[in-house]
Amino acid sequence: MGGVTEQVLLARALLSRVAEPASIPVWDAVRKRGAVRVAAEVCRLAEATRLDDTESFTPEQQELAKATAARVDGADPGADLEIAARHGVHLVVPESAEWPHFTLSALEAAGVRRLRTWNAGKRDIAEYGEPIPPLSLWVRGGGDLATLGTQSVGIVGSRASTPYGSHVAGDLAAGLARREFTVVSGGAHGIDAAAHRGALAVGAPTVVVSAGGLDRPYPVSNAALFDRAAAQGLLVSESPPGCAPRRHRFLTRNRLIAAFSTGTVVVEAAARSGAMNTAGHAQRLGRPVMAVPGPVTSTMSAGCHVLLANSDAPATLVTSVRDVVQVIGRIGDEAADESRVPKRGTTLQQALDELDPATRLVFDAMPARRAVRPDELVRVTGLPLPTVLGALPDLETRGLVVADGAGHRLAPSDRNAAEH
Amino acid sequence: MGGVTEQVLLARALLSRVAEPASIPVWDAVRKRGAVRVAAEVCRLAEATRLDDTESFTPEQQELAKATAARVDGADPGADLEIAARHGVHLVVPESAEWPHFTLSALEAAGVRRLRTWNAGKRDIAEYGEPIPPLSLWVRGGGDLATLGTQSVGIVGSRASTPYGSHVAGDLAAGLARREFTVVSGGAHGIDAAAHRGALAVGAPTVVVSAGGLDRPYPVSNAALFDRAAAQGLLVSESPPGCAPRRHRFLTRNRLIAAFSTGTVVVEAAARSGAMNTAGHAQRLGRPVMAVPGPVTSTMSAGCHVLLANSDAPATLVTSVRDVVQVIGRIGDEAADESRVPKRGTTLQQALDELDPATRLVFDAMPARRAVRPDELVRVTGLPLPTVLGALPDLETRGLVVADGAGHRLAPSDRNAAEH
Repeated sequence: MGGVTEQVLLARALLSRVAEPASIPVWDAVRKRGAVRVAAEVCRLAEATRLDDTESFTPEQQELAKATAARVDGADPGADLEIAARHGVHLVVPESAEWPHFTLSALEAAGVRRLRTWNAGKRDIAEYGEPIPPLSLWVRGGGDLATLGTQSVGIVGSRASTPYGSHVAGDLAAGLARREFTVVSGGAHGIDAAAHRGALAVGAPTVVVSAGGLDRPYPVSNAALFDRAAAQGLLVSESPPGCAPRRHRFLTRNRLIAAFSTGTVVVEAAARSGAMNTAGHAQRLGRPVMAVPGPVTSTMSAGCHVLLANSDAPATLVTSVRDVVQVIGRIGDEAADESRVPKRGTTLQQALDELDPATRLVFDAMPARRAVRPDELVRVTGLPLPTVLGALPDLETRGLVVADGAGHRLAPSDRNAAEH
Repeated sequence: MGGVTEQVLLARALLSRVAEPASIPVWDAVRKRGAVRVAAEVCRLAEATRLDDTESFTPEQQELAKATAARVDGADPGADLEIAARHGVHLVVPESAEWPHFTLSALEAAGVRRLRTWNAGKRDIAEYGEPIPPLSLWVRGGGDLATLGTQSVGIVGSRASTPYGSHVAGDLAAGLARREFTVVSGGAHGIDAAAHRGALAVGAPTVVVSAGGLDRPYPVSNAALFDRAAAQGLLVSESPPGCAPRRHRFLTRNRLIAAFSTGTVVVEAAARSGAMNTAGHAQRLGRPVMAVPGPVTSTMSAGCHVLLANSDAPATLVTSVRDVVQVIGRIGDEAADESRVPKRGTTLQQALDELDPATRLVFDAMPARRAVRPDELVRVTGLPLPTVLGALPDLETRGLVVADGAGHRLAPSDRNAAEH
């Protein structure tokens, strides 16, 4: 598997089996000590838990055991990898060249931010589910995981779509696929399936992000669609073989749809629905959220209208492929607007000198007093959207900008610097 | 007619006959010298024009003659008033207590602004048609013209509405009428008719603003609807009896729909249409513009989506009566947000001392650097919308604020004062 040792692969497979996706303690431990050590640790903690020998656990070990111990007994990562292989599924891990580092960089930055609040004591689950990167991805199909998410559009919506919604989803997907945007969605009936069909029909790849094990097509009536998606693109899941899709797995799955999409379009969604959850994830990742309007008499468009009317962070109204491309497309021919570059104080100079030129351009384009969305930064800098989306997590990690629901803004101290 | 002399009434009737609505030279002349003198002047100028004796005309007289001379011959205002009376129509003039001064104050302020650019040489017609107040209004029905426009909602849209649009227009109109908002619209088939029917069905008044003479129902198939509107509300037109509705009269008529509406809702409209023109007028008057979304596959919703996606001055998305009420309703219980009141320089003190307390509150609530819409001022000041809409033209006339497509903003000098 591209230079990845068997030991790493088995460790990641084990963690995939014993921990639920988006577990903060497990992700944090792996960040600090690597998958191999944490996998061994998890086994030791489970054994100690079984023997009721938990008194010597540190608080961190307690959290780690709580997140993993129940499933260690009987876990067999070697068997999981074998079963997966029989279904044409292999495990991709961050140690591999296949890993979509670029695609997942925004989720990585969001995870770091979440870890900060977690360590500060905020243990209740974030409103939209935890924005924690995956530890590994089970993948089926011939598409290139590392690049499919770099110019991509999530097309999401209701299982119980209307003929209008399915028609629009299929049309948008086909049109965007023709312009070389990868369509990303879940595997459900309704909008998800219509979007994949639209892209597949024009011979394009598509990414199906599943909430359960890829050996079990879910829903089974979409099995033929999944076979076609595997032939032209990819099926992706965090869950190991045999794992059933459950409600909470759909919510954690939604963060991956948002992360794999340069921008996300909600085609039809009830006011409270999985698609709204995906839109929330996208917004938190600083990714453009778009919504397709529909009849106000249709409950299936109510969620779209809620997103569009949101006064804090309104979704962009899109009615056509062209509208979507305008939001997420590569707009490279507009020069940076010099007049909007704020003057900086000298205290930041050292931090700024360390930035690569593109990241510096993005930083210089941040307005002084308000949040900005990536598409606006694209317009101002003239950089392609993927470059902007790559620069933002870097700026966040350096503490130069912060993200909120409305987009990214200068971190408070820089805002002051810009004003003085 | 409420203390209005026969002479004034005949003069205004004559001007209504000989000049097209929204004529800048005629309106300006009447502002300066009154209707009676201008009517006599117009007759003299027409006679001189007939005798080709125009060499001695001042530039202003040339404009006035150009706008009126062709129709003076044969004009008979006394006969017009008689024909009107036979159809239950009477002429309301600004000299009468019936005149809707409050309703038309925003249009009055817009007219003053336009006159300034006109005098500075900008003679091409403004994009949406000239925002010039009416010289008089022909009125049929028992409603009170002076108050019907003070809490009102324009519901406008396509003649060729879909069943969806007609349904939504009727529903919104009925719901708003039940909450004592007067419905204002044109007299066309489609959205206009559906809106009036919705309001009339719940026993409420409605205002039909017509582009032609009120003695001729247009379209004639809506004659019964107009009779009902006259019984419960009002029909209004700038055009004298016998006057045919023509394309340019629809455009000038639209400014009256916008002016008579506290806010305007576009229900269904093609991308280029009369309803879009009405929305443009409303925006220029600083009145809230709302739009109802619909299927992106329907050309009849394309105009609504254009309004909603407008990045400079987006319309507010509304899906229900409640949404509309939230935009234009009386919201009196939110206290003024002290933190948003900008600090003022002393140079303005004299001008500010002259303001009445409500107008001063509105001025103090203007943000320092951006345009603001009336609904936001309502939220910030806690004043009812009609008070805010009354205060803005006053502030404009005093040169303290200026209006543009995005709303009202502090006039440049005040903005500077707020920053220093």
